[in-house]
Amino acid sequence: MFTQVKSTKVYEQIIDQFKAMIADGTLKKGDKLPSERELVSQLGVSRSAIREALSALQMIGFVESRHGEGNFIKENFEESLIDPFLLIFMLNGSDKEQIFELRRVIEVETAALAAKKITDKEIEELKECLNKLNEVEDEEEKVKYDKRFHYNIAKASKNILILNMLNAVSSLMDSFISEARGKILMVEENRSILMRQHEEILEGLVKKDSEVASKAMSEHLDLIYEYNIKK
Amino acid sequence: MFTQVKSTKVYEQIIDQFKAMIADGTLKKGDKLPSERELVSQLGVSRSAIREALSALQMIGFVESRHGEGNFIKENFEESLIDPFLLIFMLNGSDKEQIFELRRVIEVETAALAAKKITDKEIEELKECLNKLNEVEDEEEKVKYDKRFHYNIAKASKNILILNMLNAVSSLMDSFISEARGKILMVEENRSILMRQHEEILEGLVKKDSEVASKAMSEHLDLIYEYNIKK
Repeated sequence: MFTQVKSTKVYEQIIDQFKAMIADGTLKKGDKLPSERELVSQLGVSRSAIREALSALQMIGFVESRHGEGNFIKENFEESLIDPFLLIFMLNGSDKEQIFELRRVIEVETAALAAKKITDKEIEELKECLNKLNEVEDEEEKVKYDKRFHYNIAKASKNILILNMLNAVSSLMDSFISEARGKILMVEENRSILMRQHEEILEGLVKKDSEVASKAMSEHLDLIYEYNIKK
Repeated sequence: MFTQVKSTKVYEQIIDQFKAMIADGTLKKGDKLPSERELVSQLGVSRSAIREALSALQMIGFVESRHGEGNFIKENFEESLIDPFLLIFMLNGSDKEQIFELRRVIEVETAALAAKKITDKEIEELKECLNKLNEVEDEEEKVKYDKRFHYNIAKASKNILILNMLNAVSSLMDSFISEARGKILMVEENRSILMRQHEEILEGLVKKDSEVASKAMSEHLDLIYEYNIKK
């Protein structure tokens, strides 16, 4: 007859109040939060409940605590959210194919979007990045520029949601990019193929041609797939 | 000469221990966690620190507390992560174009992936879903089947990372899908166009043809863009 009453935790109610204040604009990026003591009196809850809520908000990267200054809504969320995805990944077992598929899902259409929005300055940065990638000898350095090339393309999309999503999965992708390069480069002629693919992606972006950019990205990812998943 | 020492919060250290145990397989999905009291003694930290860590893990949807039974690692993470993305979105101001772009990024390539992995049973469910979408009269009901159609395609990708990402942004997309339908349907002939587009997506999936499926999805999203962003 009755259904179970779901108890809402105190910290959930606190978080809900934060969310409401963010939604209606009372709290904005960079804002200083009231002190723990003020929050205790304003919200009428215990100090430990306030701490739980603040910890949770810190953990997901929304609030930062500056020593001696108090708690602030973060200005930028580039560091947030990494861990939840990583935890999901770990709890579900490491499956390289899933990471690869996720990479394709994000990167192919993001290249198309970037082609529409990229600025001249960003194109220069990408060119510089590719030059470095081709010039440096050390493979570890190369990996660094390879990652930067891909990340900067996503950045050129100017979409904060996409960037956040990419950041959320970047720890998965980072290790993947480095490992993927290694496997592909076990076949020496692939070095020039990889280089050409990166250049084709850049070409699509320079022409601001979404179709060329996304097709080149897709072919690039096909090569990665061939050497990393299929075999 | 010295660089500032970054203090690691106690709850961060606790979270790190959880992560390590998840990474090495000591903690698995569905596992019961030790009681708060046991955690206090095993970790040598205060009860309030344990509570902070557990709250943070609950908030991001990794741990659930079952009344009278204790705390458990969640079996399924479909409900997790929604809020962080929503908060980011709210803190950055509502920009429909960004949500739309994110939708395109996720859905176009996910349709291609689903075409490769969809089962006969899933195809039947999608057909059923489209039938309902076309049969029901009530627009609110239609919205429900429209959302389900798109969500089930993502599910057919069988990629837990993609699904989690979609769940993370679903609260953004949900309101968007309903609003987008409304705007498109202000032009009556669009009703049959929408219907045909959904059927074309389904056709690509039935043929297990990634190119057809992703192209149809892309055209579908173009229509949405035209009526919701451009104007």
